[in-house]
Amino acid sequence: MVKIAPSILSADFSQLGKHVKRLEQGGADLLHIDVMDGNFVPNISLGFPVIKSIRGLTKLDFDVHLMIAEPSKYIDEFVKAGADFITVHYEAETHLDRTINYIKGLGVKAGVALNPATPVSQLKYILPSLDMVLIMSVNPGFGGQKYIGYSTEKIRELKTLIDELGCNTLIEVDGGIDKSNIKTIKEAGADIIVAGSAVFKDDEIEKNITQLKGAI
Amino acid sequence: MVKIAPSILSADFSQLGKHVKRLEQGGADLLHIDVMDGNFVPNISLGFPVIKSIRGLTKLDFDVHLMIAEPSKYIDEFVKAGADFITVHYEAETHLDRTINYIKGLGVKAGVALNPATPVSQLKYILPSLDMVLIMSVNPGFGGQKYIGYSTEKIRELKTLIDELGCNTLIEVDGGIDKSNIKTIKEAGADIIVAGSAVFKDDEIEKNITQLKGAI
Amino acid sequence: MVKIAPSILSADFSQLGKHVKRLEQGGADLLHIDVMDGNFVPNISLGFPVIKSIRGLTKLDFDVHLMIAEPSKYIDEFVKAGADFITVHYEAETHLDRTINYIKGLGVKAGVALNPATPVSQLKYILPSLDMVLIMSVNPGFGGQKYIGYSTEKIRELKTLIDELGCNTLIEVDGGIDKSNIKTIKEAGADIIVAGSAVFKDDEIEKNITQLKGAI
Amino acid sequence: MVKIAPSILSADFSQLGKHVKRLEQGGADLLHIDVMDGNFVPNISLGFPVIKSIRGLTKLDFDVHLMIAEPSKYIDEFVKAGADFITVHYEAETHLDRTINYIKGLGVKAGVALNPATPVSQLKYILPSLDMVLIMSVNPGFGGQKYIGYSTEKIRELKTLIDELGCNTLIEVDGGIDKSNIKTIKEAGADIIVAGSAVFKDDEIEKNITQLKGAI
Amino acid sequence: MVKIAPSILSADFSQLGKHVKRLEQGGADLLHIDVMDGNFVPNISLGFPVIKSIRGLTKLDFDVHLMIAEPSKYIDEFVKAGADFITVHYEAETHLDRTINYIKGLGVKAGVALNPATPVSQLKYILPSLDMVLIMSVNPGFGGQKYIGYSTEKIRELKTLIDELGCNTLIEVDGGIDKSNIKTIKEAGADIIVAGSAVFKDDEIEKNITQLKGAI
Amino acid sequence: MVKIAPSILSADFSQLGKHVKRLEQGGADLLHIDVMDGNFVPNISLGFPVIKSIRGLTKLDFDVHLMIAEPSKYIDEFVKAGADFITVHYEAETHLDRTINYIKGLGVKAGVALNPATPVSQLKYILPSLDMVLIMSVNPGFGGQKYIGYSTEKIRELKTLIDELGCNTLIEVDGGIDKSNIKTIKEAGADIIVAGSAVFKDDEIEKNITQLKGAI
Repeated sequence: MVKIAPSILSADFSQLGKHVKRLEQGGADLLHIDVMDGNFVPNISLGFPVIKSIRGLTKLDFDVHLMIAEPSKYIDEFVKAGADFITVHYEAETHLDRTINYIKGLGVKAGVALNPATPVSQLKYILPSLDMVLIMSVNPGFGGQKYIGYSTEKIRELKTLIDELGCNTLIEVDGGIDKSNIKTIKEAGADIIVAGSAVFKDDEIEKNITQLKGAI
Repeated sequence: MVKIAPSILSADFSQLGKHVKRLEQGGADLLHIDVMDGNFVPNISLGFPVIKSIRGLTKLDFDVHLMIAEPSKYIDEFVKAGADFITVHYEAETHLDRTINYIKGLGVKAGVALNPATPVSQLKYILPSLDMVLIMSVNPGFGGQKYIGYSTEKIRELKTLIDELGCNTLIEVDGGIDKSNIKTIKEAGADIIVAGSAVFKDDEIEKNITQLKGAI
Repeated sequence: MVKIAPSILSADFSQLGKHVKRLEQGGADLLHIDVMDGNFVPNISLGFPVIKSIRGLTKLDFDVHLMIAEPSKYIDEFVKAGADFITVHYEAETHLDRTINYIKGLGVKAGVALNPATPVSQLKYILPSLDMVLIMSVNPGFGGQKYIGYSTEKIRELKTLIDELGCNTLIEVDGGIDKSNIKTIKEAGADIIVAGSAVFKDDEIEKNITQLKGAI
Repeated sequence: MVKIAPSILSADFSQLGKHVKRLEQGGADLLHIDVMDGNFVPNISLGFPVIKSIRGLTKLDFDVHLMIAEPSKYIDEFVKAGADFITVHYEAETHLDRTINYIKGLGVKAGVALNPATPVSQLKYILPSLDMVLIMSVNPGFGGQKYIGYSTEKIRELKTLIDELGCNTLIEVDGGIDKSNIKTIKEAGADIIVAGSAVFKDDEIEKNITQLKGAI
Repeated sequence: MVKIAPSILSADFSQLGKHVKRLEQGGADLLHIDVMDGNFVPNISLGFPVIKSIRGLTKLDFDVHLMIAEPSKYIDEFVKAGADFITVHYEAETHLDRTINYIKGLGVKAGVALNPATPVSQLKYILPSLDMVLIMSVNPGFGGQKYIGYSTEKIRELKTLIDELGCNTLIEVDGGIDKSNIKTIKEAGADIIVAGSAVFKDDEIEKNITQLKGAI
Repeated sequence: MVKIAPSILSADFSQLGKHVKRLEQGGADLLHIDVMDGNFVPNISLGFPVIKSIRGLTKLDFDVHLMIAEPSKYIDEFVKAGADFITVHYEAETHLDRTINYIKGLGVKAGVALNPATPVSQLKYILPSLDMVLIMSVNPGFGGQKYIGYSTEKIRELKTLIDELGCNTLIEVDGGIDKSNIKTIKEAGADIIVAGSAVFKDDEIEKNITQLKGAI
């Protein structure tokens, strides 16, 4: 069963608690939280105090995507803030094996995100150690971008590699996904679909989630 | 008249809109917004989407304090997000005169923040170009810290320098201020007092602002 | 037909205008412009004012090779300076898909350069989006170096990959090329040959270009 | 006698040799050469090959102003390229005493440049070791900017400090200087005046230099 | 014949000379020297003065493993300090071909180290230029860690690639190796085994080396 | 009473334990330990394992001078390694007040080092919080350099400032000190003298310390 992870980057931050509750009640499977530092990506989004403020309001897993430089410096803090998944970027972490095992050692699931141009083959050896790989299907940094077509082939290659290795790493896909393309992405091998605009548009969160799930 | 600028870093981010409105109705004079990037300071707080979400909810001036590296990269974006004041750190900006004039050229008031150990004399030449100087009375990066005693002497020195130069730069002070020390700080020369915990404690925003104003 | 792109790094900068005109009249197909910042490579060569000064003197396309850190910061400026091609280094750009599409969105052709040791396979997914790949056959930073033998195999692998993907990305090769090896490089798959010393030696620009073309 | 140092940043780089000769014949006292790396300042201007190309064409001293990060890495190269003065930025060099003495040990005169907002007092101890201090009267990075008024006071303060210490450090001033303000700047204490647009405007180099000298 | 390279990181630095002599007499084949800078890895170990102090005490080759950022800055110094092998990290060096050839040009053997998660295929083109590849079987930065299982497969893939290319690059393996796993690692293709704790434990250097050699 | 702090940078690292014991028996008052990272200074000296190896061999206080970038990252580790004093560079630490108080909060004495060109006045506000100020009388990075003459005036200015503020911060001086100038330096206000070559020359540690003490 494919899971839907709404990205709170598209939420209304003046009433985030309300939106989070609506996401849970509307059928969201995880909460995707985009942390941007203005250094790894050209945008600054949100950090610890925002995450902590909603931790008590929902039972959904927090799927924290770190679009930050030197992510290893802040793993402890993100765990304290309530993360259930922590995903670091391949392009941002020199000591990937160490950081992944550090995250897992704290009892949290660990993922690696790949920028669009980064080949799947870079993960060849670390893949069985990962709980999740996040295929970025837009360039990280902003919501509302268009799905990059070649991502579908990346998902397929990753799925094949996972099957060959016999590991159970999850495939998450993030960027430009809506009801028009979600089925193709699922069939390519995605386990978790991140959706921002597609979930929040017209403030019809519940209906949008239902339609996304229906489109799969 | 000394102004009170509550720092939203101490607000409940799950209901930020509500808190912002209570601050305005409770007598806040400006809204102090602490942006932290995990690079200039060891904390990541909030950025553009959070600021934009509350811009339409209040008429209060947005007093945006950039605890970020290379602040000049993001001035345009902070103006678009609704900033009325933009303050950059002396320690983070090599080309201070350019950045200050760039901010002012966009019709926004420009300030420089000084870390506790940074001497006031560093501002000798740029001071008349500044709308505001922010004296940090704690080390930037976290709320809830204790006021650093020697800050009071820095405020006095800055006030003297401003008077000597005959300019009308405002003095803002941020960190560890509550009703027990606000009067001293005001008398040292402060024009704007940032208060976080002191405003939000016990969720009695209105009463706390009133007491702070009363204590002056 | 293989094209010759003389690198102005080997020109006489005291009379650059004259040299550029001689290159055009002597049969150059493009002008290769090496920008070095002292940060990505251990040399500082030239930048905007030098490029602008010759833009009006020739109709040749400007093929601008950015050996600079954080190339995305300066794309707009290089377009304004008159670039027709902009090539960024794989090793210098974290968000390659974004930068490539940004360049193309400004109506300029976009390339990616690979350092000698960087495998061709890194470009697997981004390749069809590229107008050009630049295979560095010397280490970037200086003129007058010797051709690195294993580059020929890289050209062949790239050519095969381009043919397999059915895209029409051009292959440019830069470093240590003269009439003794240009034919082999062309046959390996090169579309554009950069030549510095080989074009400017003995101040016989016209004759050298003719000989290079003859040698293919 | 105040000296005029035309900045070649305003020259026509397609015929730099010709311009350099006209500067020498027109009465220039030194050649001011602005090296920008796109890192310390947001512009890339020129580097070693451009400087070397004109070294043989003139007897004027080369006054090389390094607007680059980590200038100590390139001192040897700038000496080889023909520098007679090398000026590094206070804001770019952690080990100022070492770099200054390294430059002087190579038989070249050594200067320190101060950004507009940087106080003169920072140089208190190193001043007697310096051959020159460069007061930036615009923010470094671009030609054609307006003179920053408070620079005049900085020149005066520096002149006083030099006189108190009894050293013979030269004062150079760079940015926005033309015949309307050159006299004031000289009277404040300047020994060397850098002029770009004011020298090259209307391609009347000789006349412009004469007028600048006349205005003093 | 597999060689044993004890890592002095596990030695007693208060009597390093004595330990080095015992290593030589106990049968060590090379001396592995771990240089850490607190920047590329989160530890600071030792540098030039420590290496120099033991150079005269032994005829063993010094196998210097640079876990430092920007290794190219210090090659000359490590050669002067007595290095016979210099290994730089793939993840730390942008201009790998240049640095490798620079090391070899000084008459010293050159290696590249791969962090655990870095694929072997990154070395495809540079491999025949290398005297050695160092497969890190723990994350670099600390002694006493557990061998990472998937390293064995990396050694095998590297061995196959070396055989295919017909080059004679040595394979060195470092991290978590003792008599329980040394045979497997050798059979996977290792030529040089680094051992720290396994050599120094219980201060029985001679016996430990003998046992390691016996276990192969 | 002025104290002598021999710098182990001039010791023989192959027999460091022996040298440390001779220093203690020879009358050393503290052990000065120079940590260099190849980043803040162009040298890599020693780090944690070397310090730990000698901690059990002497009762002398460890006076650890961090010539490293981002010193705040490693305070905990240096305390664990046995530091009694930790001195960070003014030029390396943006958040000086925080780091100083962090060190003191761990029960260790805290100092700030000033590069030769850095004015004493930068410490105006933080001075009373400091246990020690280290005046560098050579440029940090290497032993065996010549005393910089203007350092004496810096010591005097610092002494005057300390007396005016009524605080009991110690003044330490490091670089180029021997029996010929130690008396002048002491009279200028120094409390602790670091000596490297002067202590270790001719391997006459005991005699050299005695002579240094005698020269005061």
